Amino acid sequence: MTKFNESKTPWKSDKWYTSPWNFAPEVRDQMSFSKNIQFHDVTLRDGEQQSGLVFNKDQKVALAEKLAELGIHRIEAGMPAVSPQDAAAITEINKRNLGPKIFSFARCMKDDIKRSVDCGVKNVVMEVPSSRHLIEYAYKWSFEKAIELSIESTLYARDNGMYVSFFTIDGTRADIDDYMKMVKAIAKDGHMDELTIVDTFGGLNPHAVPYLVKKVKEEIKKPLGIHVHDDYGMGSALTIMALASGVDIAHTSISACGERAGNASYEDVALGLLTLYGVDTGLKYEKIYPLAEYFRKVSGLHVRQNRGIVGPDIAKIESGIVASWFKNVDGIAPLELSPYLYSLTGHPDTEVVIGKLSGIPTVEIYLDQLGLKAKNDEQAMEIVMKVKERALENLRLLTLGEFEEIARKVIGA
Amino acid sequence: MTKFNESKTPWKSDKWYTSPWNFAPEVRDQMSFSKNIQFHDVTLRDGEQQSGLVFNKDQKVALAEKLAELGIHRIEAGMPAVSPQDAAAITEINKRNLGPKIFSFARCMKDDIKRSVDCGVKNVVMEVPSSRHLIEYAYKWSFEKAIELSIESTLYARDNGMYVSFFTIDGTRADIDDYMKMVKAIAKDGHMDELTIVDTFGGLNPHAVPYLVKKVKEEIKKPLGIHVHDDYGMGSALTIMALASGVDIAHTSISACGERAGNASYEDVALGLLTLYGVDTGLKYEKIYPLAEYFRKVSGLHVRQNRGIVGPDIAKIESGIVASWFKNVDGIAPLELSPYLYSLTGHPDTEVVIGKLSGIPTVEIYLDQLGLKAKNDEQAMEIVMKVKERALENLRLLTLGEFEEIARKVIGA
Repeated sequence: MTKFNESKTPWKSDKWYTSPWNFAPEVRDQMSFSKNIQFHDVTLRDGEQQSGLVFNKDQKVALAEKLAELGIHRIEAGMPAVSPQDAAAITEINKRNLGPKIFSFARCMKDDIKRSVDCGVKNVVMEVPSSRHLIEYAYKWSFEKAIELSIESTLYARDNGMYVSFFTIDGTRADIDDYMKMVKAIAKDGHMDELTIVDTFGGLNPHAVPYLVKKVKEEIKKPLGIHVHDDYGMGSALTIMALASGVDIAHTSISACGERAGNASYEDVALGLLTLYGVDTGLKYEKIYPLAEYFRKVSGLHVRQNRGIVGPDIAKIESGIVASWFKNVDGIAPLELSPYLYSLTGHPDTEVVIGKLSGIPTVEIYLDQLGLKAKNDEQAMEIVMKVKERALENLRLLTLGEFEEIARKVIGA
Repeated sequence: MTKFNESKTPWKSDKWYTSPWNFAPEVRDQMSFSKNIQFHDVTLRDGEQQSGLVFNKDQKVALAEKLAELGIHRIEAGMPAVSPQDAAAITEINKRNLGPKIFSFARCMKDDIKRSVDCGVKNVVMEVPSSRHLIEYAYKWSFEKAIELSIESTLYARDNGMYVSFFTIDGTRADIDDYMKMVKAIAKDGHMDELTIVDTFGGLNPHAVPYLVKKVKEEIKKPLGIHVHDDYGMGSALTIMALASGVDIAHTSISACGERAGNASYEDVALGLLTLYGVDTGLKYEKIYPLAEYFRKVSGLHVRQNRGIVGPDIAKIESGIVASWFKNVDGIAPLELSPYLYSLTGHPDTEVVIGKLSGIPTVEIYLDQLGLKAKNDEQAMEIVMKVKERALENLRLLTLGEFEEIARKVIGA
């Protein structure tokens, strides 16, 4: 179950130091988190739909194992219709009883439900287009047909013992009245155990989320999920806005892999909830970075070197100003220079690198490392200037060897 | 000046199709955008502080020219104290009168102001630590000393004819009363032409932003700026939350480069404002993707292949379901499958690729391209299965040549 931080200063612990503004009564009053927040990982389905990502069965099983070790609550293991290997992967992942609830993915058609049943899973995400325009242009169906097929196939899934997560493709671009009409019809005449609000084409803004969730909650008295895409780099924020509005289930992926512009990154959402909101979803946070690194290796995904949480370079300090801060706080106030300790996520710890932005403090740190000492301030500054020149010549950081060469020449050691 | 979309359906134009929920009266009522939103680009200063990014003078001037062509409103051209090349770059960028307002960056000390004056600029961002803990641990100053230095140096900058953007390092992690005390003291006894709220260590959550901005606006009757970092992948959303709360100036960088986990991506903020909020900041949006590509080339930054807006792969369709939609909407309803047309940002257009996720529609598209035709459904399905097998063998997409080989073998052509 979700745990809520009861500290008087939840923005500050021995592992993080964020903003007191986050916890002002006027701010907290806007929120109503579910007591049972669930991460529903879509890496093996929507994630693999990212152009160029492809996993074989063994890789899928290995990823599911790692997600289970992380403590993820649910795994959408794939879509059996994609390939026999996918069906085999779903079957195997389900059979292993790893801990997370295992879902299969299906279109609203009996054949897809049958394939899911054949994989042995008990839970299925069932997708149907829910905006009139996508239904008419992309499916060449009528709106009424989409409703009929949904009713028929969700009842079929239920009759086959399935827990049904009803997944409304392009729901956020549907006419608001149409959308309500459809989900109410399925809830009444078809079957859904939960409803997933889906921003398939990434068109939702953060401000709209609380209102959308509120309106849906008024009509659908079932657990709610949110599934967004990252077209504007706001997938994580959208997901957090939805959770803070009382949505129970967050569809996320590892490092925001996914169809088109990707899904919401579970890393951002989980660590954001923990340290910015005081909401602990129970994941093993120290596995976040190792999993991101592993995922990059098996998938070929790369991320911005300085991407929050999962970027390899976030803990590297080049700037002279920041290095001077680091010198002063090191060992005394470790939370001064980052919102959380990097060890919290298993990320390599802070490292001072040396390059064009470096100043005296970095040079002192590096001289120390080499057991050298500048004779006076002028020498130290001469080294700084030569470091900057070298960085500009090569347009990159200096290695320790390059630094040593410069330092010894200047000092005469 | 900022333009506001007056259409009755601002979520839908000939270039974008986002969510009607964004424009529900209950949602819009929360917002109060400035009539003069300014992008303040920090790529050449905070951007270069990213570990490993380094630009020489010519590259800085070239980047400033490209930012000017884009229509960016302000450029923070660098910090003269970093190196003589930086001072020379600031001087040169300023001299060229490119259009954007040019800022230098300075610590709150007379020497840094002098260096900025020497570069010829008329605008300066002046940073001072504003949280008691950072002041005491990292600067080894007292809180009072930080206030005194700020008063003294901002007056000095004003007396030297500078427009002063007062930049409060770690402001979001300051005690709320301390923060208000400091900014009121500088506004009263020192000098500021505008105040920048700074989330130096990335600890702010999106919900807190409207309240923080409201409280600061109550005390400071000057233009306000927002400067955030992307530690939780929410820098763009935080910036948009601040703009929607009436902040005038957004500190952003190209593709979220920047110190530690980077700054807010101007791409997300600008395109988000335009298409999700109906707020046109006047940028030349079609230059967004070319600039991101150029920036990656000169900086060595890389981004997630499917990163929203700037990722090279966002317009590639692999999934069979999405390819079937594409076949139906192509040339008829081009906005069905993305929140905006890729041509809006100068991004390469939609392309159907072929791999493990592909189905019959993709095979048909590829056969068409080669002037081939399957004799029946069984042949088409045989090709699909062989395509999937090949993708799984190689764990990557297929080339056209690989597809042709498979197709000709199956069809016997």
